[in-house]
Amino acid sequence: MDKRRIAVFVGSLRAGSFNRQLARALERLGGDRLEFDPVDIGRLPFYDQDFDSDYPVVGVELKRQVRAADAVLFVTPEYNRSIPGVLKNALDLGSRPYGDSAFAGLPAAVCGASPGAIGTAMAQQHLRNVLSYLGMAVLPQPEVYIQFKDGLVDDEGRITRQDTREFLEDFIDRFVGWIDRQRG
Amino acid sequence: MDKRRIAVFVGSLRAGSFNRQLARALERLGGDRLEFDPVDIGRLPFYDQDFDSDYPVVGVELKRQVRAADAVLFVTPEYNRSIPGVLKNALDLGSRPYGDSAFAGLPAAVCGASPGAIGTAMAQQHLRNVLSYLGMAVLPQPEVYIQFKDGLVDDEGRITRQDTREFLEDFIDRFVGWIDRQRG
Amino acid sequence: MDKRRIAVFVGSLRAGSFNRQLARALERLGGDRLEFDPVDIGRLPFYDQDFDSDYPVVGVELKRQVRAADAVLFVTPEYNRSIPGVLKNALDLGSRPYGDSAFAGLPAAVCGASPGAIGTAMAQQHLRNVLSYLGMAVLPQPEVYIQFKDGLVDDEGRITRQDTREFLEDFIDRFVGWIDRQRG
Amino acid sequence: MDKRRIAVFVGSLRAGSFNRQLARALERLGGDRLEFDPVDIGRLPFYDQDFDSDYPVVGVELKRQVRAADAVLFVTPEYNRSIPGVLKNALDLGSRPYGDSAFAGLPAAVCGASPGAIGTAMAQQHLRNVLSYLGMAVLPQPEVYIQFKDGLVDDEGRITRQDTREFLEDFIDRFVGWIDRQRG
Repeated sequence: MDKRRIAVFVGSLRAGSFNRQLARALERLGGDRLEFDPVDIGRLPFYDQDFDSDYPVVGVELKRQVRAADAVLFVTPEYNRSIPGVLKNALDLGSRPYGDSAFAGLPAAVCGASPGAIGTAMAQQHLRNVLSYLGMAVLPQPEVYIQFKDGLVDDEGRITRQDTREFLEDFIDRFVGWIDRQRG
Repeated sequence: MDKRRIAVFVGSLRAGSFNRQLARALERLGGDRLEFDPVDIGRLPFYDQDFDSDYPVVGVELKRQVRAADAVLFVTPEYNRSIPGVLKNALDLGSRPYGDSAFAGLPAAVCGASPGAIGTAMAQQHLRNVLSYLGMAVLPQPEVYIQFKDGLVDDEGRITRQDTREFLEDFIDRFVGWIDRQRG
Repeated sequence: MDKRRIAVFVGSLRAGSFNRQLARALERLGGDRLEFDPVDIGRLPFYDQDFDSDYPVVGVELKRQVRAADAVLFVTPEYNRSIPGVLKNALDLGSRPYGDSAFAGLPAAVCGASPGAIGTAMAQQHLRNVLSYLGMAVLPQPEVYIQFKDGLVDDEGRITRQDTREFLEDFIDRFVGWIDRQRG
Repeated sequence: MDKRRIAVFVGSLRAGSFNRQLARALERLGGDRLEFDPVDIGRLPFYDQDFDSDYPVVGVELKRQVRAADAVLFVTPEYNRSIPGVLKNALDLGSRPYGDSAFAGLPAAVCGASPGAIGTAMAQQHLRNVLSYLGMAVLPQPEVYIQFKDGLVDDEGRITRQDTREFLEDFIDRFVGWIDRQRG
């Protein structure tokens, strides 16, 4: 079987972002079955409803990229107990104009890393609300709240803790099964 | 007593935005007691955690504008059952770096207009979650979900329906009382 | 093919409940493909963590009833912008002790009726958060917020408005497709 | 000044509940300024809309107890990422019939204990949504997510860890200030 193509949204723009490292580690773990296609959300304009009559090229391209995917993966920090604005804006831009959303019907999964113990739970809850409204089938379990410490992911994208690696392998397995069920 | 200075965040960038019209109508209704200072959220950069070590000038100015206010008013549409990305980004940018948020301790109120009946309820719920985390005292009631039809606000910023005008006058009265109680 | 067995949770205890009428109408609409098995949530005790070491018989029976189903349907009003306590309690009782939840892996759908225009949107959002945590695959779209007026459902359980009937027929179709996909 | 009277809702029914222990510890910490009046939510019936025409005596008494308070404190675990059904039911029963809610206008605070690290954050978020709708002024910060280990509260209701005790003393101080500001 061909690899499933995954559009990957990382919610942080920071160069050394924990979530970017987590995305890279997931790509390595699932690389035999998944092909990651990162979405560059930092270059998008703010969505403006006046776009709807004449959509900007970057918006059209964003939607084309999402539609070329078999599923979508969100890897995101929590900002102020919700979704980072930059990530929410990408969802807004990719979902418009009304009736021409790129997301409808796609399977999805959500995960996130943070340095604190409470983690990204509330960002993920808001994100799940949005994705459900967008008509995406979101993998319900496991919840993936990774407490990130320096060195958790090495320079080659390997996860150095065995329990975290096994947890994420199980996450990837379930995500693959979920994609195949939704699309089969 | 001097007028209370209100930093006003409108969640839509569209030129003819219903929510911009609603903000203008509220300014007119409350003009004897409130002075509105609109925040230009469309020109801000996406918040990037790498900013924290060297904050961009527009971010510093955003925080200065918020801190100069006695209270904050949010007038916002709902995008995909949550806060527009452009508004969430302004909150992210105004709240960082950690320990230097501009919002902590300020009174706030939330309202929104939409063409549909279900309205902006879920955007406001996510927004209230965020504002509470930011340490703002948010006016709990009334919930303000305005169903907007063309002509509701005339060219002078007057509300043409009596029931809506009376409802919003009561909202302004309660917001003024709330501000004075939180700051008194 | 045999009919799919649906455990039905109605969130209101009121004898003439709009939501009970809605459930009956859905049963009639989907009767050729679905068999409804109503869950009596009003007779359950409040969940108490001390149950976990010696689970009450009604809790064991609730879980048996859920496990005998192919899917779960929630038909609920909104109380104070969230899930009715009586419905949340049924979910709590059916999900414990830890590791012995009856809900994990089941497909589900959510709908609700209310007299007001804003409807049951926020109850359904909280409910979806809970069901996702419980590991249920919840049909993302359509959102079903029915504005209920007397006479919408007649004495035989027929929906008297054509647009509402067609909307709910589509909802049933999608729910059936969703169940079959998740269980196939 | 007289002590402020606090109606206290503990969301767990378990005899040895962590949250009951936390409530006791808070009572001890704030005992010079606050008088705790526990609400017995485990004996209430499930709210039924048919009550509205003839409210049950226990519902009337619940509302009388809440109205006799200067503020309300919620100390609750998280069940399935939301409010325990038994606690939500008490809020439903105390808020009806329409126009006769006991909660409107009261100051409130929210806290919770759990054995896990993620804690009670999502239950508190749903709870805050509900309390805001009920017209309560809820202390925004600090968020109180206590990770509970056996021995954290001793037999006399003393908190044995200094950092937790200082954190909760600050919480009590802020709650007292919040009550006085809202009621002054």
